[in-house]
Order: sequence, then C-alpha cells, then structure tokens
Amino acid sequence: MRVDDLVQGVLGRDRRALARLISLIEEEDPVALDALSRLYRHTGRAHIIGITGPPGSGKSTIVTRLTSEYRRAGKTVGIICVDPSSPFTGGALLGDRIRMQEHSLDREVFVRSMGTRGHLGGLSRATSDAVRALDAFGKDIVLVETVGAGQSEVEVVEIAHTVIVTDVPGSGDDIQAIKAGIMEIADIFVVNKSDLPGADKKVTEINAMLDIDPGERGWRPPVLLTNARKGEGIPELVATIAEHYKYLKESGLLEERGLKRSKEELEQIMEYKLTRELLTKLQGRPEYEGAIRRIASREEDPYTVADRLIVEFLSSYKEESSE
Amino acid sequence: MRVDDLVQGVLGRDRRALARLISLIEEEDPVALDALSRLYRHTGRAHIIGITGPPGSGKSTIVTRLTSEYRRAGKTVGIICVDPSSPFTGGALLGDRIRMQEHSLDREVFVRSMGTRGHLGGLSRATSDAVRALDAFGKDIVLVETVGAGQSEVEVVEIAHTVIVTDVPGSGDDIQAIKAGIMEIADIFVVNKSDLPGADKKVTEINAMLDIDPGERGWRPPVLLTNARKGEGIPELVATIAEHYKYLKESGLLEERGLKRSKEELEQIMEYKLTRELLTKLQGRPEYEGAIRRIASREEDPYTVADRLIVEFLSSYKEESSE
Repeated sequence: MRVDDLVQGVLGRDRRALARLISLIEEEDPVALDALSRLYRHTGRAHIIGITGPPGSGKSTIVTRLTSEYRRAGKTVGIICVDPSSPFTGGALLGDRIRMQEHSLDREVFVRSMGTRGHLGGLSRATSDAVRALDAFGKDIVLVETVGAGQSEVEVVEIAHTVIVTDVPGSGDDIQAIKAGIMEIADIFVVNKSDLPGADKKVTEINAMLDIDPGERGWRPPVLLTNARKGEGIPELVATIAEHYKYLKESGLLEERGLKRSKEELEQIMEYKLTRELLTKLQGRPEYEGAIRRIASREEDPYTVADRLIVEFLSSYKEESSE
Repeated sequence: MRVDDLVQGVLGRDRRALARLISLIEEEDPVALDALSRLYRHTGRAHIIGITGPPGSGKSTIVTRLTSEYRRAGKTVGIICVDPSSPFTGGALLGDRIRMQEHSLDREVFVRSMGTRGHLGGLSRATSDAVRALDAFGKDIVLVETVGAGQSEVEVVEIAHTVIVTDVPGSGDDIQAIKAGIMEIADIFVVNKSDLPGADKKVTEINAMLDIDPGERGWRPPVLLTNARKGEGIPELVATIAEHYKYLKESGLLEERGLKRSKEELEQIMEYKLTRELLTKLQGRPEYEGAIRRIASREEDPYTVADRLIVEFLSSYKEESSE
C-alpha cells in the first residue's frame, strides 16, 4: 500500500488502512513515518485515556464497560492494549478476543494489541504513534490499557490526557499493589471488585496517601468504587473522566502538557534521525570496525572513541562545503 | 571527590570510592563518564552472571548461596540488584539488608541496589556502567539480580555472560511464569524450591520446550533443581556456570559477544553525546520554542521539523568552516 493510499484510507475511515498503518508502525517501516507526518495535522481531537494497575484488577473489564458507555453516547472508540512484558502479542491477543466478543460487530470500535518488539523505548514510541493513527482516523476516545503495572507501563500511559489507576480490595496486605511511581501519575483511582471485603478500607487507604501527597494543585484524584463485571460505578467513572478533561482544558494544563509532549516528541524524533544519519555513514567502514575491535580488546575506551567519531562526523559536513 | 581520586580509589580497591562512583553513575554525573573512560582498560576480567525469573522464585536466596560458594573458593563478589518496577530503591534496599546479614562482615562482597531513576533506557545503561565499575575494582564475579521478570529485566540481564532463569514448581498452572522472551535468553534454568510438589514435572516441561527450540548450537541450556534455602543443588549450579563460561571461551562466543557489546555500547554513547550536542545548540533559541508551539497547534508536524532542524544543525558546521 502506497503512502497516499494509507493516508487517504485512514482519513476516509477505512479500517483496513488503519490496521495496516499500525502494523507498519510496529515494524518501524519508514512508510509509517511518512504517513504519520501527513496525518499529523488531523490529530489532537481524541481524548486519550490511559488505564494501568496490577494484573487481576479488572482493567480489561473496565475498558469493555467504558467502551459500552461511550458507544451508547454515540462516541467512537479505539483501544490499544499494551503488554511490555511480552515480546510477542500472544498474551494480549487473548484479551482482544474476550473484548471482541462484546464489541466485535461494532464497526466503530477498533481494538489492537501491542507487545514489545525489540526495545522498550520502541514500544512507548510505537504506542504513541498508534494512538496518533487512531486520533487521525477520527476516534473520539482512545483507551490505552496496560497488562501489568511496572515502570514500562508508566511510560506507556504517560501519553494519555487522563490516567486511571486501578486496584482491588485487599491487594495491599502482602504486596504493595500500587507502587509509588504509579500513584504519582494517577488522575483517577478506581477500586474495582467493590463486592470483595475490604473495598471501603482500600478507598480510605488511597485517600490517606492522597492526603499526604495531593498532587497537582486544582485536581485531587478522586477515588471511585466500581464493580466492572456488573457495570456498577461505570457511569460515575465516565462522568469523572469528562470532569478531568474539562479541568485540563480550563486550567490551561491541556495546552501546557501538549507543548511539553510536542517538545519531547520532537527531540525523540531528532535523536532517532540524527543517530541514523551518523550510523549510516559509519556502517561498514574499516576504521569503524577497527575501532570496535580495539574497544573489545580494551586498547581504547568507548567514551573517547565516541568523541572522536562525532567530531569526524560533524567535520565531514565542513569538508563537503570546502570542496 | 575528583576524577583522579575516584579512579585511583577504585583501582586501589577502596570501597568508598566504588560506592561513590556508582552513585555518580546513577545521578548521570559527567564525572562518572570521565572516570569510566579511564577505568575501561582495567575491565573485561569479571565473569558477569545475570539472574532473572518471576518474583517469589527465590532469586535472592540463590544469589546469597552462590556468593557463599564463590567466597569459599576465594573469589571476590559484586552484586547489583535491579528493580525496574520501582522508581525508588526502597523495595530493593530491603533485599540488601537481608543479604547483608549473611555477608555484611565480608569486605570482599559488595552489594548495591538500583531502581529506575528517570527512564528505563537509563537503567540498563546505569546497570551496565555499575557492572563495569565492579569489574574495574577487581571483582572476580559480578551477579546482576532482577526483582521481576519483565521485558525491562531481560534488557538488564542481557549484559551478562551467563544468564540464569529461575522458576518454581507449579507456577505454570495458572500463569505462564517463564515467558517466551525470557526462555530465549537463558543459558541455565534453575527450578528452585525442589521440595515443593511438581518440581520434576516443571523440569520436564522446560526440557520439552527446549526440545522444540534448543537455542544456540553447542549449548543446550541445562535445567537444574535447587533448594536454595537448604543450599541443595548450589555446588552443581556453580559448576554449571563455570562450564558455560568455559564453553563461551572455547567456542569463540565470548569474543564474538564482546565485539557485539562493544559496538552496541559505542553506538549508545555516540547517540547520547551527539543528541546532547544538538539539544544544547537548540535549547532556549526562540526559533526552537516557536517550532514546538507550531507542532503543538498542528501547524507543523514533528517529523518535518526534525528533518529541518537536523539539516540546520549539520550546516552550522559547514558555516563555521567557511568563515
């Protein structure tokens, strides 16, 4: 599929073009960057909602229920399920199938799983690009769900406007289910499985933590009780998510964060492109291979060699001009 | 502490200098890179052993037992305990204290915990640098232990010569304890808690997986049974680790992997330094701030802006020469 067809397909709400673009993003195909570059001006309209929390806290069920609510309100939904602990998409695919049962006939719901292919940094960039594709496609709501709740998940959901952190009653008894790093990124807490004993206690615990560290001025993360399997508490969750989005807009935080994200993204892209330019020049050159051998045999150290090669790389542009 | 003092301290086996250097590595202090650059030629002698596996599979106990065995054989030991799921070192510190009880009076054992400060990529680079510091210090054995067993842990232990993957009986019943990505990096499997029911079954299962995918030619990962708490199976594990190191040397794989690591490391350092050079030039310039604002407002896309800024950056070296 050519770039033109991809771009036109996505803008024309062709689901196959969208699926193809996300595959190209995952494969780090240069065509994906071309397409995203042209789709960029059509983005910035979706409300991006991240959901993270320990395994078994019902994230998938919450996502399914939220999707039903949003569909009922006439909104279109895109879902990205991210599993940083899996180099393949096997585990995540199972989750897909379960969700698909409920929304498989609904053409306004698009579900996609992403695993770690290659490096972790790659996963958070790929997730961010896939979210952008869904945004350009015209999805009103994009849900980004993680499988676990580690540091990699934190990085993944940081691209969201609104971050929901889930937990379940009793989980704090033996292990610290919600770790410090995750507490900090939560805009909304959800204590799911409210029918289990200790649900109110868990809410109190989280509120006590928030009393110590209330986070950003102007928004104290609410702590909601849900029973996602029965659908209880979901309308309240949807309302709270909308409230948070309104707060972001009115406080100017949405714009502020948008600027911060744009800067981070620009710098990531420059880092990627500039490094590729350097490595393309070095690859296969006998001096380069020789330097690597001398590093391996400890005749030279990589820090000094890096400095030398960078100076040579930058001077090569000097030479070109003097020719 | 000046760079000279740090370098002389580490080479003179001063534990405080070593601890200070690792702190500087964690803080990404430029002094750390200077020191590592000068220590580099004194590295390459330690046997680096990585240990990963699901939580609760007894990794810490195995590490403690291995340390006792190596000390008995007169070898010096460095231990790095890595927790990618924690932005702080709180959890890991607890592990330290437990280990310290057994080896706290032994000045030839150095234990250090590392959490994620900032980004994940930073953690694997910091771990690698800390291992290098222990190597330059003269540790014969460096053990790198991870808290969990996710993709981040895989990246961390990939710096090791020999990777041990731990598991426990029965763990495969409800969740897939050893995920595909971790199976692939194992040089040795350890089924710990051999007194639990299902230990032999677990060994059979792992062997069956290895029959399907035996990995690199010449080394089929052995599957060992241990009961680390009682010390059972530990001498056999030490012997197997030594066997694997011998195999790496004799097959030429140690050299081959050393070259690969040197190349990866050189490229990481160049990426870091070159990007820093670019960003230093851009930071604070009004054109740069303006471009970021236009990206945020969707007037421009980050991919096109990145290309333009890189061309400008490289041309600036051209201009300097024509002056």
